[in-house]
Amino acid sequence: MKKIGIIGGIGPASTLDYYTGIIDGYRKKTGSDNYPEIIIYSINMTEMIALIEKDRWVNVTDMLTSTIKRLSNAGADIAVIASNTPHLVFDEISRQTPIPLISIVEETCNFIKAAGYQRVLTIGTLFTMKNGLYTKPLEKCGVSPLLPTEDEQSEIYSLFFPNLENGIVIPEDKEKMLALVNQIIHNQNADSLLLGCTELPLMIKPGEMKIPVIDTVQIHIASIINHIAA
Amino acid sequence: MKKIGIIGGIGPASTLDYYTGIIDGYRKKTGSDNYPEIIIYSINMTEMIALIEKDRWVNVTDMLTSTIKRLSNAGADIAVIASNTPHLVFDEISRQTPIPLISIVEETCNFIKAAGYQRVLTIGTLFTMKNGLYTKPLEKCGVSPLLPTEDEQSEIYSLFFPNLENGIVIPEDKEKMLALVNQIIHNQNADSLLLGCTELPLMIKPGEMKIPVIDTVQIHIASIINHIAA
Repeated sequence: MKKIGIIGGIGPASTLDYYTGIIDGYRKKTGSDNYPEIIIYSINMTEMIALIEKDRWVNVTDMLTSTIKRLSNAGADIAVIASNTPHLVFDEISRQTPIPLISIVEETCNFIKAAGYQRVLTIGTLFTMKNGLYTKPLEKCGVSPLLPTEDEQSEIYSLFFPNLENGIVIPEDKEKMLALVNQIIHNQNADSLLLGCTELPLMIKPGEMKIPVIDTVQIHIASIINHIAA
Repeated sequence: MKKIGIIGGIGPASTLDYYTGIIDGYRKKTGSDNYPEIIIYSINMTEMIALIEKDRWVNVTDMLTSTIKRLSNAGADIAVIASNTPHLVFDEISRQTPIPLISIVEETCNFIKAAGYQRVLTIGTLFTMKNGLYTKPLEKCGVSPLLPTEDEQSEIYSLFFPNLENGIVIPEDKEKMLALVNQIIHNQNADSLLLGCTELPLMIKPGEMKIPVIDTVQIHIASIINHIAA
């Protein structure tokens, strides 16, 4: 069995989803009593966000590359970054790491292609939206990538801190988020909603939307299980 | 800040308690926006229990020692084993590891001494009870260590699998556990109840017992926070 290394803590709540999701999914898939070995390096999210806010992407790349080396030193055979935003420098990181990485963006695009969605609205952190993390990858798959307007992006991101990023869903924030996102879906005639942030599934549940919801965390976890149970 | 390494997965549910407890406690204690760096190596609990059941303690020692070396390779400055039972070989492990370990048994005994409890009933896995994990350490502190009878030990441990060890509390199991433990407390005139297994706090809550409940997980977490926030 391959050992998975996870860069976690971005944020801590979604790291818990990865940990329990991989264990439960692995045991179901293999039908075994065994538990997968999982190595988690939980970083200081505040430090990383400060670098991103200053557009210091080289430092972000260095920080995450060295963390993956630490995971490799601990015995990880493959690694993931349990967060969407840092995938903006995924290619730079993966060129420097001693072990292969599984990209949340690539796995999500494969999922969308298979599902046949055509007009995909991506929401996530401000950095993910304004830098168009999913824009080119979706275009490559022949999908129309949709994004909120600049004002809408700011409004969405204002609902992340301080609660959602710490795994807490405030009912009023949730209500505002759903109303706003439903309006954007309507305006842009989206056929699916991509939750491009690992904390968003805490706030937006598939059953609550009129169009299919694409949960990047669950797609990432399913791919990890396929890799380690192979 | 010192980086904490955690041997987790024994079981996964209590690993989540350690992870969130350390992050929340650290942020409260330091009043900082920063998140502590935490490294978790989650092992295959089934493999470890199989070794323990065959009394192959040398192999258990080797398994945990090499895992702590992996945590050290990943950058951990200190380490803990997030489980009571393997502390039966804590001394053997700590003699071989490159970084210092914080013992859940030692920290719990310090807590009991400070609290002034005199007749402490320990419950936990069958291995923890029958090998008297807390017996000598409590005696050293001048405390009377109490244990369930052999039959009671088997009965308690039968309520661990398969649910509690996977973080699931079945109401009927909980009812049986509370009735049994209350009877033992009465029979032995205990003045406090030591939850000597990291999963037991999921089933037995302080407010539900007539005597104080000693939660080894929370004591261990508090000590970890003191070490890394120092």
